[in-house]
Amino acid sequence: MSTQSPSGTESLGPDFSNGKLVAAIAQDAESGEVLMLAWMNEEAYRETLATSQATYYSRSRGRLWRKGEESGHVQRVREVRFDCDGDAILLLVDQTGPACHEGYRSCFFRRVDSQGVTIIAERMRDPSEIYRKP
Amino acid sequence: MSTQSPSGTESLGPDFSNGKLVAAIAQDAESGEVLMLAWMNEEAYRETLATSQATYYSRSRGRLWRKGEESGHVQRVREVRFDCDGDAILLLVDQTGPACHEGYRSCFFRRVDSQGVTIIAERMRDPSEIYRKP
Repeated sequence: MSTQSPSGTESLGPDFSNGKLVAAIAQDAESGEVLMLAWMNEEAYRETLATSQATYYSRSRGRLWRKGEESGHVQRVREVRFDCDGDAILLLVDQTGPACHEGYRSCFFRRVDSQGVTIIAERMRDPSEIYRKP
Repeated sequence: MSTQSPSGTESLGPDFSNGKLVAAIAQDAESGEVLMLAWMNEEAYRETLATSQATYYSRSRGRLWRKGEESGHVQRVREVRFDCDGDAILLLVDQTGPACHEGYRSCFFRRVDSQGVTIIAERMRDPSEIYRKP
């Protein structure tokens, strides 16, 4: 998978060399809302492309993380883009339910300004219900 | 600057402990287009809040990077958000000119799918003109 850009630079894709993790932004394909930022290794990236289901690399768990595997809040991937330097990925997704493990649609539910921090969104679901074992 | 979230978690802001860099997404405040991803240290974050001009930390140059300092393509910051885990920042900005050093409005001008990589945007400016010394 490569192309020739107008400047003649070869663009193979994101740079996963030496086991690097690449930041991946998930954006709601309809509303444009930025939902979350997570990380991908090459395996997660390839699986995302192959399945059209957002798959990340969980740094805390040290393994692939198929978004929604526990919560059911999956992301169907409509389009994958990557940036000029190959060190960031943008996914345009259809998000089922809240993207955030705290039950908000977007993980970016806190605004900061000179007054301090304000919660600017409503919770969609109670986190204790999202992760309750059956 | 702190607040009490509904879950009782104290939210001081992004986590810059131990000199950590935090990923910062710039999103066009009007169109919702994701323009770029860069990095902030605590100094960059504080300067961004204080000046409402996007300021990042350049990993390649090892110093603060006031977006547009060479190109003139500044970002006026309308709003700053941060995510649930305090490890990502979202800036809603008014972007002057192209955000990308390659002359595209957004750094995410390449789409990848099973057919390969496609350039999906038009260049706004020739990079050689952006950085030409006077």
